Amino acid sequence: MSLFSLIFGNKQKTATIAKERLQLIIAHERNGQNSKPDFLPALQQELIAVISKYVAVKPDDIKVSMEKQGNYEVLEVNIVLPDPASTR
Amino acid sequence: MSLFSLIFGNKQKTATIAKERLQLIIAHERNGQNSKPDFLPALQQELIAVISKYVAVKPDDIKVSMEKQGNYEVLEVNIVLPDPASTR
Repeated sequence: MSLFSLIFGNKQKTATIAKERLQLIIAHERNGQNSKPDFLPALQQELIAVISKYVAVKPDDIKVSMEKQGNYEVLEVNIVLPDPASTR
Repeated sequence: MSLFSLIFGNKQKTATIAKERLQLIIAHERNGQNSKPDFLPALQQELIAVISKYVAVKPDDIKVSMEKQGNYEVLEVNIVLPDPASTR
């Protein structure tokens, strides 16, 4: 089973609205020997800035969540993209 | 079940080597009305450049794969991070 299926296999049924979406997941697997604060929160801001260069993203359309589990820090960013047909 | 578990549930067993890793997954859900070429390949280069500002990534340690499935274009980037203890 592909990683794609694992992530999106259950989601396609509900994604019938004709909105484009961009989902970004960053997982940092730490080995416990590095005590420095994680860089994901800072990275997140820059990644959104880079994405904004390619698509006109509105701040309200960005949902960010951060999760820690074991050695993993996981940052998830969900963006609803503007409808290209609606741009005038 | 959390998205985290779906992605990493099967992987933790094999990730016992004390290397830090960063995994980035970007999924672009397209609605079929937008015929423009996808921007993920270009975005990928910029994202790696941003990540390189936070961690010293060697080009050999970056694995990129791109997959299309239905309305989704999925870009996956796997990076083995340098061991902070080995920096002299």
